[in-house]
Amino acid sequence: MKFTKMHGAGNDYVYVNCFDESLPTDIPALAQQVSDRHKGIGSDGLILICPSEVGHARMRMFNADGSESEMCGNGVRCVAKYVYDHGIAKEEELKIETGNGVLTLQCNLSGTKVESVRVNMGKPILTSADIPTLLPGDPPVKAPLNVGGKRLEVTCVSMGNPHCITFVGELSDAWVHGIGPLIESHEMFPNRVNAEFIQIVSPSEIIMRVWERGSGETQACGTGACASAVAGVLAGITERKVLCHLPGGDLELEWSDSDEVFMTGPAVEVFEGVWPE
Amino acid sequence: MKFTKMHGAGNDYVYVNCFDESLPTDIPALAQQVSDRHKGIGSDGLILICPSEVGHARMRMFNADGSESEMCGNGVRCVAKYVYDHGIAKEEELKIETGNGVLTLQCNLSGTKVESVRVNMGKPILTSADIPTLLPGDPPVKAPLNVGGKRLEVTCVSMGNPHCITFVGELSDAWVHGIGPLIESHEMFPNRVNAEFIQIVSPSEIIMRVWERGSGETQACGTGACASAVAGVLAGITERKVLCHLPGGDLELEWSDSDEVFMTGPAVEVFEGVWPE
Repeated sequence: MKFTKMHGAGNDYVYVNCFDESLPTDIPALAQQVSDRHKGIGSDGLILICPSEVGHARMRMFNADGSESEMCGNGVRCVAKYVYDHGIAKEEELKIETGNGVLTLQCNLSGTKVESVRVNMGKPILTSADIPTLLPGDPPVKAPLNVGGKRLEVTCVSMGNPHCITFVGELSDAWVHGIGPLIESHEMFPNRVNAEFIQIVSPSEIIMRVWERGSGETQACGTGACASAVAGVLAGITERKVLCHLPGGDLELEWSDSDEVFMTGPAVEVFEGVWPE
Repeated sequence: MKFTKMHGAGNDYVYVNCFDESLPTDIPALAQQVSDRHKGIGSDGLILICPSEVGHARMRMFNADGSESEMCGNGVRCVAKYVYDHGIAKEEELKIETGNGVLTLQCNLSGTKVESVRVNMGKPILTSADIPTLLPGDPPVKAPLNVGGKRLEVTCVSMGNPHCITFVGELSDAWVHGIGPLIESHEMFPNRVNAEFIQIVSPSEIIMRVWERGSGETQACGTGACASAVAGVLAGITERKVLCHLPGGDLELEWSDSDEVFMTGPAVEVFEGVWPE
């Protein structure tokens, strides 16, 4: 099976072109195997680029633990780069079908290849029942959450997948690795949740670390960055346009007046390989 | 540049066949790039398989930080598998040139491919000046070492590269990640050192975790397992033949009556790929 390793701001996946390759039978098992960073290819998960009846391509994504997710903002940028660079559709505006609907992506070229991509990530989902979370408020903003003996104030937003955002004084491993997994599996989140930790630099600049549902800490999470930009506005902390620094790179977020969130960030092809059947 | 990803007990390297590929100009920079687990191929380092005038092939190994090392026990097994499986030399007994001399390896086949390899790792070096360490004793056995506010008892052995072994009651991240880096760069070790932490199961069975010089914690370290087997005998704790459990798999060690250390363990090819020039 041919594959391509790509990353967006360090959030790296193994991509398989299912226009050419036949779908593996046990995808969750394959996702676990290829994601292993010592005995596999090594990645945050597996993304299949499939034919679509409603867009130029359809992305299906599987986390390192084999679970399927609706969408990944860094992943969908790489899907767009792959679709353009490999000639599946040679259009700078692409429509990609995801588990969170059909997204419109604007490719920014450097020469003949895509360098960065602007994604309309859609409107945030702000009703508790739909996020979903059992915390009160539509959405919960600075809502109290008891975790690991601490009483946190968290803000919850769905970008198609659920996020729980905590604004902290200073980022640390204790937050991400200590509190992150406890939030992920907290009883207030029936579908589990991604846990973002945000340090404020200024009203237009934040630093984020994320504990991703099913993957642990990753270098970047696109939907998490979008959700955090929305949460910052809801909490009265940041402006509608914000630069987000992540361990793997920078993302620009804008929560537009039309209520849609736009994310712009890099997409990089690292290498191509062949995984033995 | 074509490459092959292989691992021995989870100790994984990017292998380049320099019989076919031309040598890159800046090898340390390349080693750093390919080793990056999010933006590169992802590995513990880079190993070049080169022509040799004194063996079937020569291995040159570079850690993830770009520094060059003499030898890697898990790496040399994979070199043997590569040399046999890819037809560079179709002999079950192979001689591989390393920075620690020419080693003899016995390939164990499963069908037409190499499954595990027995390596004569040579005689341990037990004089302090040659290990090298400034600690007293030839070699230092249960020698006092002040590290991070603790007074440890360490045993030092070189297998061509230096090792500092600590027998602990119970393995933990605090030992490996807390104490490991402090031992690596301790002033008693002029060339820095690999730090092994050993938990005893029985006189013939140990559990090991290792902080590797230049790489941090790895899933296995072949020379470290050999050095630990020797250290266990010197300290009067283990027998001359010992099974060593590592996070990435098992290794069998034997310190023979001829003073040579034999290591038997797995070698696995994971996938092949192409790294853009």
